[in-house]
Amino acid sequence: MAERFEIVEKALVKMLEDKKYSALREVLTTMNPSDIAALFAGLEEARIPLLFRLLPKELAAETFVEMEPDAQELLIQGFSDNELKEVLDELYVDDAADLVEEMPANVVKRILHQADPEMRQSINQILRYPENSAGSMMTTEYVSLRPDMTVEESILRIRRQGIDKETIYTCYVTQDRTLLGIVTVKDLLLAEDDETPVGEMMLTNVISVSTLTDQEEVAQMFSKYNFLALPVVDGENRMVGIVTFDDAMDVMEDEFTEDIEIMGGMTPSEKTYLKSSVLDLFLHRIPWLLLLMVSATFTGMIITSFEGALAAQVALTAFIPMLMDTGGNSGSQSSVTIIRALSLGELRFSDIGKVLWREIRTAVACGAVLSAVCFAKILLVDRWLMGNPGVTILVDAVVCLTLFVTVVIAKVVGCTLPLVAKKLGFDPAVMASPFITTIVDALSLLVYFLFSQLLLGV
Amino acid sequence: MAERFEIVEKALVKMLEDKKYSALREVLTTMNPSDIAALFAGLEEARIPLLFRLLPKELAAETFVEMEPDAQELLIQGFSDNELKEVLDELYVDDAADLVEEMPANVVKRILHQADPEMRQSINQILRYPENSAGSMMTTEYVSLRPDMTVEESILRIRRQGIDKETIYTCYVTQDRTLLGIVTVKDLLLAEDDETPVGEMMLTNVISVSTLTDQEEVAQMFSKYNFLALPVVDGENRMVGIVTFDDAMDVMEDEFTEDIEIMGGMTPSEKTYLKSSVLDLFLHRIPWLLLLMVSATFTGMIITSFEGALAAQVALTAFIPMLMDTGGNSGSQSSVTIIRALSLGELRFSDIGKVLWREIRTAVACGAVLSAVCFAKILLVDRWLMGNPGVTILVDAVVCLTLFVTVVIAKVVGCTLPLVAKKLGFDPAVMASPFITTIVDALSLLVYFLFSQLLLGV
Repeated sequence: MAERFEIVEKALVKMLEDKKYSALREVLTTMNPSDIAALFAGLEEARIPLLFRLLPKELAAETFVEMEPDAQELLIQGFSDNELKEVLDELYVDDAADLVEEMPANVVKRILHQADPEMRQSINQILRYPENSAGSMMTTEYVSLRPDMTVEESILRIRRQGIDKETIYTCYVTQDRTLLGIVTVKDLLLAEDDETPVGEMMLTNVISVSTLTDQEEVAQMFSKYNFLALPVVDGENRMVGIVTFDDAMDVMEDEFTEDIEIMGGMTPSEKTYLKSSVLDLFLHRIPWLLLLMVSATFTGMIITSFEGALAAQVALTAFIPMLMDTGGNSGSQSSVTIIRALSLGELRFSDIGKVLWREIRTAVACGAVLSAVCFAKILLVDRWLMGNPGVTILVDAVVCLTLFVTVVIAKVVGCTLPLVAKKLGFDPAVMASPFITTIVDALSLLVYFLFSQLLLGV
Repeated sequence: MAERFEIVEKALVKMLEDKKYSALREVLTTMNPSDIAALFAGLEEARIPLLFRLLPKELAAETFVEMEPDAQELLIQGFSDNELKEVLDELYVDDAADLVEEMPANVVKRILHQADPEMRQSINQILRYPENSAGSMMTTEYVSLRPDMTVEESILRIRRQGIDKETIYTCYVTQDRTLLGIVTVKDLLLAEDDETPVGEMMLTNVISVSTLTDQEEVAQMFSKYNFLALPVVDGENRMVGIVTFDDAMDVMEDEFTEDIEIMGGMTPSEKTYLKSSVLDLFLHRIPWLLLLMVSATFTGMIITSFEGALAAQVALTAFIPMLMDTGGNSGSQSSVTIIRALSLGELRFSDIGKVLWREIRTAVACGAVLSAVCFAKILLVDRWLMGNPGVTILVDAVVCLTLFVTVVIAKVVGCTLPLVAKKLGFDPAVMASPFITTIVDALSLLVYFLFSQLLLGV
């Protein structure tokens, strides 16, 4: 699919270069706004305004919403007041609010100046809510009905008001702005009697979120309940807006990217990879690398204090990387599983007993198999094949016992830390592999040297 | 929220124990199917059929769809033929097909026997498509219109047929089953003239998927284009079904989970954590652990061949864990970033040059800072504070040079492997941290010993 898009992209750029504007306009009108926006992303800056002006008004606005902030800013800088007003008139309020959040102050001033008073007020309302809250992602444009309206009156109202609403398919029945229930267009269209008041047919067990609900929780509710839209109410249960499923999907993707970045030992970034500067990449990566490097001092100190043992049995050193890596991998398997189950809402802190019992049994099974295979491998490869005389049966035993204990420790640490982090109100993803690796490394080395002392007497 | 649900759960179980059935029924009818299904998941097996029979017919079917397969099987085993037929009649075809896929053969036979002929045919059609294809996740129930129908006729058709359709909001204009365009209920309701034929107002640049399109690609199209539903066509562009956004959201979540599991060094599992047996967990984790443990043999071999150097300069051993961990962390930062950008469609293989140039500059910056801090830290902590005479300035230099080179190698390997995997048609997630750690370990040890030989002459 990506390849097909590249071919289209090249053809269109060629048309632009050859000034075949009317043909280009024809092609663009058959394209989807997201695809046109992707096209803009690959274009030279100078050509962006030219191509944009070829788009019909409505398509232009829809494309504008899908574009990257830097291209949006470039366009607005070049717009006449009239052009800006035309684009703004076509935007939904939540998209306009997103735009205002992204733009620098001088552009924001122009936008708010050109927006009509109603939109200006709505934008300001949405911007008052904290970032990442339901209030900041909602739109204030929805269809509201009164409970005494009949099915026929309701449909009439939708037909009159629908044009400006992001979704008309779920309508909200309110009285004095208090949310009483919801009615879908499907219910209205399929109603047997046009005279039924919507108050009698509405669904009253409405699930709503507060303006301050975290966006991650909002996204989870969408995926759990399969809603098209979710009403947002204020502290007094008065309806202030709706969140639509497309914004919830975007949040789901963003939150997942954030989780992955944190689990990979980075501070999360809002920019896409190719839009991030090298400085951005550096700044998001260096803090964790520094922290983890300095914390590896402990493993160094452990090794230093057992230098005598290592000097006496040099063969022991060769197995340190294998022990550390296997411990790290075992731990991250558990932590990754638990972190994901937590973010899907499958686990609570109170499940910690169940989780530990499962992980310990799994660890014993994994540890036993790994140790057995490792024992045989060391005997075959290191002792016989490579003929290393330092690798005695006893050394082999020390390595495999350590391996077993390390796997168990790693899995216990790996499953416990994310649950504890969640309980303490931290993001469990922080407790993913890099962090756990460091802890497991230190513990596995300690175990290694203890067994060496016990069995080898070094 | 989880806590609130636990309280409701306890209250309802108490009501069930006290046989307050009519009150319980009252409460259940105000609840959402997903929440009732979650309630069933926590219930003793013997009580499941009892509680299920308290639900009104339609709510029962909606709840049934949301339940876990084992509870579904339990219920079907206990259903009379009549009860089974009633539940099946309320299911949408795609949900019924999912059910058939999950159940054992004897249950499937009963389901197909009780389904009406039309549904049986649709189920069989859906089941013929490969797992994880658009065909297997679609429903065959959608509203189709002819291009010559007027707006008024179309609305009438929706009102007559809509009751059985999963979504009515997007209607498909077809001729001889070939997809010509789409019309939304919003378009129809807001149309100015009731006599306009839908063929004149339909959107013709319809994006569709083939029955064989992979479900991950389908989900990505939903998040890119914000569709409510996506038409599925066969090889001759004849419309065979639609995929709805709720199924796409589920796929998106499942694919995230799969990515995370693979990146954590596990084979992906379809079961939730608490539903997986210890054997499941073991079997999903042990293959990678074994593979990675055995591949760590190389690091062991490298250390063994430099045993002499280590014996001469015991202080060198203490820094092995720090070098390996920092290398592993640097590499996984890059690989995780690239894997995510690939699965979001932000990168293509042809960007490899751009990616390498960015990663190398970032690596040089990270490596320089890490080496400088490490140099100072070793001097301060290891040499002066801990008074380790073996840690000479030259040893410090070897460690920090190795660190710098390791970080650069790790980032280059970390960004290259996922891109190459993608190009070769593998899942890039496989190239995440565990794999890259193993490679980077071996390379960093080689560099370490090379620098030792050069600078320390050991």
